[in-house]
Amino acid sequence: MSLANTLSSVPLFTGLQPDQLERIARIAVDRPVDRGQMLFFERGEAEGFYIVAEGKVKIFRSAPDGREAVLHIYGVGESFGEVPMFMGGRFPASAAAVEKGKVIFLPRAELARLIREDATLAMNMLASLSGKLREFAGKIEALTLQEIPQRLSAYLLDLSEREGDADAVELDMAKGLLASFLGATRETLSRALSRMAEQNFIEVKGRTIRLLDRAGLEDLASGEVRL
Amino acid sequence: MSLANTLSSVPLFTGLQPDQLERIARIAVDRPVDRGQMLFFERGEAEGFYIVAEGKVKIFRSAPDGREAVLHIYGVGESFGEVPMFMGGRFPASAAAVEKGKVIFLPRAELARLIREDATLAMNMLASLSGKLREFAGKIEALTLQEIPQRLSAYLLDLSEREGDADAVELDMAKGLLASFLGATRETLSRALSRMAEQNFIEVKGRTIRLLDRAGLEDLASGEVRL
Repeated sequence: MSLANTLSSVPLFTGLQPDQLERIARIAVDRPVDRGQMLFFERGEAEGFYIVAEGKVKIFRSAPDGREAVLHIYGVGESFGEVPMFMGGRFPASAAAVEKGKVIFLPRAELARLIREDATLAMNMLASLSGKLREFAGKIEALTLQEIPQRLSAYLLDLSEREGDADAVELDMAKGLLASFLGATRETLSRALSRMAEQNFIEVKGRTIRLLDRAGLEDLASGEVRL
Repeated sequence: MSLANTLSSVPLFTGLQPDQLERIARIAVDRPVDRGQMLFFERGEAEGFYIVAEGKVKIFRSAPDGREAVLHIYGVGESFGEVPMFMGGRFPASAAAVEKGKVIFLPRAELARLIREDATLAMNMLASLSGKLREFAGKIEALTLQEIPQRLSAYLLDLSEREGDADAVELDMAKGLLASFLGATRETLSRALSRMAEQNFIEVKGRTIRLLDRAGLEDLASGEVRL
């Protein structure tokens, strides 16, 4: 991968203009690393952050007895150390190359200079990170919700059936209890209810839930349809 | 919630120093909103972004036939519009208050001025977002992995049993196939294998998997223990 390609694979730099990327590339330092070579030590000052260009890097803490706890392994195109670097703090753990490879070092002082010279650079980096954060939040929501509407639909259909196929059912337990019953947090349960209401499967009024689309709920309950 | 509290609840501002938060508070504009009041229209220039201080705001697109597709609903302490604002672009959708409430508007031009005056402000915002991104990435990994080690352990124990409780088994299908069999992506399967190897449940050598901790694998398979 070329330097520019490696840089633009990092969320922080994804949204940069070509000339901005070039300025970043100019302050970037290529550093070949041998297997086992240390990049930084726990509690060292974070004078910059790293991107893996070749090979793998492990982040670890050493116990007093010398044993290592590996916290994370980063591969090509992944960055590490940027949080303490931006904060102007210290590294919370150590880093070493797992195998022969190459890392790119971005020095804090130079990054700060580029940001002082061009506020748009900071704005574009903030845009990239905000965008990635939105994307991740959406993924988390989707993953968290995944099976809750299914269980919830089954539960609502069951309640309705027990009351002679009633079109509206009363939630017969508090939302907190129902949430744990369904294996969800209260927040996830509320989100599932809102989503199902937005998509016209149900109508929610306090504890009363009107089943608007029984066939749709059956599809949800069977897992055939997902929200 | 006080203005400073509302501001610091937004990931972008979480890591700011008190004096930096105060400078942000000074450029923030309180805006009471009525039920249904429009905040911005799709394709309007993103001259700032918003934080919900009271009530709820919906983000939506209008179809040519006038129907609304609600994309998202934001509640107290949540921000929206920062990506196009930072990019200097246009809003991809419209926003309106769902109920009577209050929003806080952060104007782009003023934010850019603060960043020009103090590079540390940008660095601290970048630190906050990077930190949140790491947190979210961890959550996604945990959610994605959740059930895969369980299924994988069951599969490995089954393979071993079929070969007379062998201590080492050969994966009898390609990793891509195995992944779909277990309902995972190739990437998730690889991560699950590495995690299980890191924690000494197994040892992986190509397609050969050595079962190092049969009791541990049984706990994983039964769901009693999680990675």
